Amino acid sequence: MIIFYDIPFAEPSICWSPNTWKTRYCLNYKGLAYRTEWIEYPDIEALCIKIGAAPTDSKDDGISPEYTLPVIYDPSTGQTISDSFNIAVYLDTTYPDTPRLFPPGTRALQSVFVQYANFRIVSHLGQFLRPAVFQKLPAGRSQEYFRRTREALYNVKIEEWAPRGDDRVREWRKLEKALVLLDGHCRRTKEEVGGEFICGINPSFADFVLAGIFQWCKEGFGTESDEWNDISSWQDGRWANFIGSLEKFSMVV
Amino acid sequence: MIIFYDIPFAEPSICWSPNTWKTRYCLNYKGLAYRTEWIEYPDIEALCIKIGAAPTDSKDDGISPEYTLPVIYDPSTGQTISDSFNIAVYLDTTYPDTPRLFPPGTRALQSVFVQYANFRIVSHLGQFLRPAVFQKLPAGRSQEYFRRTREALYNVKIEEWAPRGDDRVREWRKLEKALVLLDGHCRRTKEEVGGEFICGINPSFADFVLAGIFQWCKEGFGTESDEWNDISSWQDGRWANFIGSLEKFSMVV
Repeated sequence: MIIFYDIPFAEPSICWSPNTWKTRYCLNYKGLAYRTEWIEYPDIEALCIKIGAAPTDSKDDGISPEYTLPVIYDPSTGQTISDSFNIAVYLDTTYPDTPRLFPPGTRALQSVFVQYANFRIVSHLGQFLRPAVFQKLPAGRSQEYFRRTREALYNVKIEEWAPRGDDRVREWRKLEKALVLLDGHCRRTKEEVGGEFICGINPSFADFVLAGIFQWCKEGFGTESDEWNDISSWQDGRWANFIGSLEKFSMVV
Repeated sequence: MIIFYDIPFAEPSICWSPNTWKTRYCLNYKGLAYRTEWIEYPDIEALCIKIGAAPTDSKDDGISPEYTLPVIYDPSTGQTISDSFNIAVYLDTTYPDTPRLFPPGTRALQSVFVQYANFRIVSHLGQFLRPAVFQKLPAGRSQEYFRRTREALYNVKIEEWAPRGDDRVREWRKLEKALVLLDGHCRRTKEEVGGEFICGINPSFADFVLAGIFQWCKEGFGTESDEWNDISSWQDGRWANFIGSLEKFSMVV
């Protein structure tokens, strides 16, 4: 049984990280047996060093490699893999009889999609979501670690991160607009081959990247929040429907 | 015979625009009969209105629609199509027995790739290339039009656009780095299915987007320029080889 390392909130069994969600969707979609080990932020580096998980440098942004999750350990091969893209490639290669995460020949374009999503969507969300995520992390060591590292990395106090007033309205509109543009890209495939997903009828890694971002919104803001209600309502429920269509691959085990 | 509208330099029969190059590659790759009509910048809008070519808004950047090339007129269907992506879709649909520009199910990802290339590569190149392109446009109306519209759009004088000294070195390194990162994405497909192109063994629209950017560099800076020599030397000739592999689809007719 594969061990999947994920980052906990204070409330148990909530998967919230957009990056670990990518891998959770991949494992669920492939129907592979796995169990989750929840690793608090300040323990990730020691875990990775202990089990031989490489630091990742997949953000295309010049930030030095860092130890981060998701990581999986697969006892059937003895391998430890880090980085959600590498994990997806590993799973497609190691378990060729399960549903594919990458339609043949699309890996380069899917890798570009990850960066596009970071630049065009995550970039607008982080300032809203990271302060919300902070509140839901386990009090004490996790919150202290998150505050210290994020305040240094982004050069802003947690409490002053989220935009307010007119700024908030303007920045939130940028997010909405980025999602309208993304929908425009998605329609190109829908016009050609139909289906609700980025490559057509079946979901692929890019869909899990996008769905992971929405799960981050849903769990970070909360399902009852104004922010999540707002996102769910955009484009006649386009993104709520998208998440709904992946519901059966969303279990947290 | 398809009529393909392109933008001239002062020197005849030079295709230099990254956007018109995309379409020229598509036409050549499909082996479709076409001839070029060269339309100077200040005449593009009147042409488009006359032949019923829609303005384009494909840049994902909030700039209002504008009349621009490439445009094609296909007498066999009576249709006029604008925007290189739309033209590629039209050609794949109308001429299904010619080599495909989009492997099935990849249109959304290819559309995202266009924006990625704009944000991560063109954004670093424009400041260097547009002043060089200006010098090669037909003197008089074309140069006057280019100066007026670009100086208004980018809020900078043509003569002060290109960075100098340390700035130049720093900005040029950003371009080199963006291409290293792009190569990293491309390797993902190469590791899986081999081939020199973004989707594997055969070129697709994304390759023509990228090759169009390099043609812009080659013609804008000049084949003997330090800049083009520099780009050609990066990553052991990675990009020079890439352009070379598309040589047989590079004829200007």
